[in-house]
Amino acid sequence: MRLRQLGEQALLDWIRKRAGRKEFSGISGGGRGPLLLGIGDDAAVFRVGTGGKKNKNKKALATSDMMLEGVHFDLRYQTPYQLGFKLVSVNVSDIYAMGGQPRLAFFEIGAPSETPVEFVKQLFEGVFDALRVYKAQLAGGDVCASRSGLVLNMSVIGEGEKIVKRSGARAGDRLYVTGPLGDSACGLALLRKIGRPVPIGKYVPMGKPVSTKKKGLPAPSAPPDSPLPWDIMRPLLERHLMPLAKRPPKNATAMMDISDGLLIDVIRLCKESAVGVKIYEASIPVSPQMRQAAQTLGIDALALAKTGGEDYELLYTAEAGKEDGGILIGEIIGSGYYMAAPSGADKSKSKSKRFRAGGYEHFSDV
Amino acid sequence: MRLRQLGEQALLDWIRKRAGRKEFSGISGGGRGPLLLGIGDDAAVFRVGTGGKKNKNKKALATSDMMLEGVHFDLRYQTPYQLGFKLVSVNVSDIYAMGGQPRLAFFEIGAPSETPVEFVKQLFEGVFDALRVYKAQLAGGDVCASRSGLVLNMSVIGEGEKIVKRSGARAGDRLYVTGPLGDSACGLALLRKIGRPVPIGKYVPMGKPVSTKKKGLPAPSAPPDSPLPWDIMRPLLERHLMPLAKRPPKNATAMMDISDGLLIDVIRLCKESAVGVKIYEASIPVSPQMRQAAQTLGIDALALAKTGGEDYELLYTAEAGKEDGGILIGEIIGSGYYMAAPSGADKSKSKSKRFRAGGYEHFSDV
Repeated sequence: MRLRQLGEQALLDWIRKRAGRKEFSGISGGGRGPLLLGIGDDAAVFRVGTGGKKNKNKKALATSDMMLEGVHFDLRYQTPYQLGFKLVSVNVSDIYAMGGQPRLAFFEIGAPSETPVEFVKQLFEGVFDALRVYKAQLAGGDVCASRSGLVLNMSVIGEGEKIVKRSGARAGDRLYVTGPLGDSACGLALLRKIGRPVPIGKYVPMGKPVSTKKKGLPAPSAPPDSPLPWDIMRPLLERHLMPLAKRPPKNATAMMDISDGLLIDVIRLCKESAVGVKIYEASIPVSPQMRQAAQTLGIDALALAKTGGEDYELLYTAEAGKEDGGILIGEIIGSGYYMAAPSGADKSKSKSKRFRAGGYEHFSDV
Repeated sequence: MRLRQLGEQALLDWIRKRAGRKEFSGISGGGRGPLLLGIGDDAAVFRVGTGGKKNKNKKALATSDMMLEGVHFDLRYQTPYQLGFKLVSVNVSDIYAMGGQPRLAFFEIGAPSETPVEFVKQLFEGVFDALRVYKAQLAGGDVCASRSGLVLNMSVIGEGEKIVKRSGARAGDRLYVTGPLGDSACGLALLRKIGRPVPIGKYVPMGKPVSTKKKGLPAPSAPPDSPLPWDIMRPLLERHLMPLAKRPPKNATAMMDISDGLLIDVIRLCKESAVGVKIYEASIPVSPQMRQAAQTLGIDALALAKTGGEDYELLYTAEAGKEDGGILIGEIIGSGYYMAAPSGADKSKSKSKRFRAGGYEHFSDV
């Protein structure tokens, strides 16, 4: 069935039912969780960041991300389930990057009238599954017809007590990341080579559930003409298709998530903090899978790690020794952006070079 | 200049500067208003619906609306300034419809790289001017390239103490609207006949400011080939292009805004409240301008008032006599949807007929 056959109201009814209608007990009564009134009225009603006696310093957080067909995603490689999951993760990552916890999500979708209803439902399944991972709830949104491809937007509202801004880095702080970089960009390169959806998450290809639990169903495995073994590709594809947002460390002085690439994002953080940075090139973490895949694809692994986007690792600064599990990749200095590369055979010596931003920018002529 | 020449970062910098950067005094310090940290970080930080001792029943509200080129708007008739203004009003209307006040707005825009920078700036001017009218503040959003026309999304966060849901109507309540219906649909019909942007709001046609204040500039007037005098068309065009959201009455038992048409929306309200309705057909308010324009256009004025969308008047129920300025158009009954039309010459007698929904539905086959 197509959306034009189902109609807007029936779709909204399905979403509302699926979202669980946890509102119930009424506005003034004791709804559990922050959502007091969910889908179905003119606006959602909620309480977030309200403090109370115990934690009166709680504040609310809100972020939003738009994802457009042909710009942010490609339906030739991505399934609706994967897309929905990713849209949530991308937003939650921004909330984590402020040191907060996600609470509510608002999902707006514009879809052509010819879109199969099953496609939209799987998109929502991805959204709901991701929201469950992050313990957040769908609270509202908008559904409309589109004449120009699939248009997705999500806003996530969260709350936090100790908010970590981009502007808190000070000279002497160390620079950390929460995990290896470049995996997502490498996953995208693999995906383009494979040229069709891969069995990451549920329902791949569309309509056929993927499961390793039920007997009789094969475990998801690489497409037959894959350029590399599945255990090499899988974590990279996963990181691109269904990234998991990283939980924030406790002692960050400044923080942001890496969405456009390490170099462009580290410069953004430095600009907000009015500081400079020295990155230790040899310390930029690269996963063994990425290193191997990059070699096969003929791409420079380190370049991917420096400028590849969509990793959704957190980039943060903290006092030396307060890294809280992060990987040390540099230090904050007074001014200038330097890359300290090991020089010659003696890797203990290093030579610093200035670097410029590299990464993804919208509307770019390049 | 085009967006691809300006680049994403420069556009974001302009927006951030234009939005006023009122954040500053720091997270824990005393920022004025609900916004503690605005544009420029991973997420906005705010306090809304937090109560305090005086009003501990305050809750937060959130709503969002997507507007797509070719579906919700047509750039042949609408200017970016008008679009931006309308996007805010449409969202604020939803907040008012819950009995709340708007506080913060989040604006997401996807635009082709070839879009003139001036176009985007005028779009934002419309947003900022509308936000000023409603005393709300731009708190964040997203900007990205689009390969398929202009894509707009807005979320507005508000707060309210006495929240009015759709579900509060009870048999015996009276049904009210805040103003005449069908003006917007009639304005759209006029606009299509005129076939180009009209001087409602600033900057029409694009780039040329419209002003009646400065000497030497002519007052905005109708295009030379207009089907009707300007004083007839102007309020109708205004209502379609730059609607003003209506402030909520005080005693509503149930409320929503009329966005898709009176009949479809009144049925939605009744369904949520599990009640029926009898509408007095002769009481449905029609403006004299609409009546005259509809006649010229050969459209049935009453049909426009019943099913025309985008009026953004509030539809609400209240106890008899507690209308608070609204126009009485019917009464809530136990079940069924009836239209009471005056019968024959004696208008005091009326004949009730069942009615079905009529109005706008997305994805509709019709």
